[in-house]
Amino acid sequence: MQPGDDVARLLLAALDRAGLTLRDGDVIAIAQKIVSKAEGRLVALAGVEPGDEAQRLAAQVGNDPRLMELILRESEAVSRLRQGVIIVRHRLGFTSANAGIDRSNVGPGGGDEVLLLPLDPDVSARRIREVIMGETGAAVGVVITDSHGRPFRLGTVGVAIGVAGLPALWDRRGESDRYGYRLQHTDVGVADEIAAAAGLLMGQAAEGLPAVLLRGLHLPPADGRAADLIRPKELDLYR
Amino acid sequence: MQPGDDVARLLLAALDRAGLTLRDGDVIAIAQKIVSKAEGRLVALAGVEPGDEAQRLAAQVGNDPRLMELILRESEAVSRLRQGVIIVRHRLGFTSANAGIDRSNVGPGGGDEVLLLPLDPDVSARRIREVIMGETGAAVGVVITDSHGRPFRLGTVGVAIGVAGLPALWDRRGESDRYGYRLQHTDVGVADEIAAAAGLLMGQAAEGLPAVLLRGLHLPPADGRAADLIRPKELDLYR
Repeated sequence: MQPGDDVARLLLAALDRAGLTLRDGDVIAIAQKIVSKAEGRLVALAGVEPGDEAQRLAAQVGNDPRLMELILRESEAVSRLRQGVIIVRHRLGFTSANAGIDRSNVGPGGGDEVLLLPLDPDVSARRIREVIMGETGAAVGVVITDSHGRPFRLGTVGVAIGVAGLPALWDRRGESDRYGYRLQHTDVGVADEIAAAAGLLMGQAAEGLPAVLLRGLHLPPADGRAADLIRPKELDLYR
Repeated sequence: MQPGDDVARLLLAALDRAGLTLRDGDVIAIAQKIVSKAEGRLVALAGVEPGDEAQRLAAQVGNDPRLMELILRESEAVSRLRQGVIIVRHRLGFTSANAGIDRSNVGPGGGDEVLLLPLDPDVSARRIREVIMGETGAAVGVVITDSHGRPFRLGTVGVAIGVAGLPALWDRRGESDRYGYRLQHTDVGVADEIAAAAGLLMGQAAEGLPAVLLRGLHLPPADGRAADLIRPKELDLYR
């Protein structure tokens, strides 16, 4: 994947090579890395000039000040610092380590280049979906995925950072369960479950797969956004 | 599913009816509800005597004092309260609303009976796995799943509360990526990703499926526990 590449058309070519024909209701999960690369979000650290705050925080964290500068540019607020790690509130609303900036699998330059998240992954998902629907006629969903650490639980899991053509949150309040008892407060984070399922297959190392096709999910029609998954602070009793 | 039922043998019978033969490496995700029911964890609220603290907290939250009594018995600490919801640290280590006590799909009694989590879901998973391996000879993994809300993000997602025969956390630190750059701090919460993937298919309402078979995951051999997924407070920069 190179800057300017067309993710949707490359996916369609790969599906074609695999002999797969897209169907209505299929969901394509796409690793953030290939979307970011196609959108030219690879940054050479050598060209980054760290400001004062980046230098100060980098000294605290023990990080590269140029990387810290990029983290700060991608963030709304710094949440926590520790040796080697900075947790921020990303400009896209979620809380993540190092603002989701990635040094692995970014290219042969290894640690000298880093990859920022897409500028607006919900828009990226929408664009990819439109091309795929235009070419195939299939009403597919698209989820752009990333791996995040999380509070309370160890281990990264796949989460949705871009969504188009499916519900991100599936509101099941008011539906009855099999015994007729009304379900209470059951919003399912269905786009995150899709991202986690895709994460199982994508892996993260040498065998990494950039995209996963999910078929047979039977989701209700909806056009959600990954932004729907961000919990407003005033509704967050879990923190 | 009734108290005393044998979850493993009922699953084997269902696999048999579906014409499926288990293979080494298969993972069976099982909804907590059926394990809890089989273990007799259904409680009639009519028989619960709320203590002083339960009465006081129930008045604050606007909850049934008998339900509150059960929540407190299942918890180590109360984290947050709000109208209709109490967030606790469960005796099993995770943070959840209402201590994971469920009023939906528990039986024809509806809201008059509630379902507690298994006493030790890691042990439950191990027992189920042993019966399945004894009967089939297949080295399978077992994940007992529940749906949890979470900080920062809206929507419930499937999480692992019991694990046997697979890694709960997959430590990929030190492995190289496809460009030879060493992955940093990449522990993957693989049992949670399995639970989320299964959650996509299980649904939560009338069409709910109690178990999902995952095949082709190629996980490394390991014998993890859901307890491995609990992030110690001192390692939690995300809160």
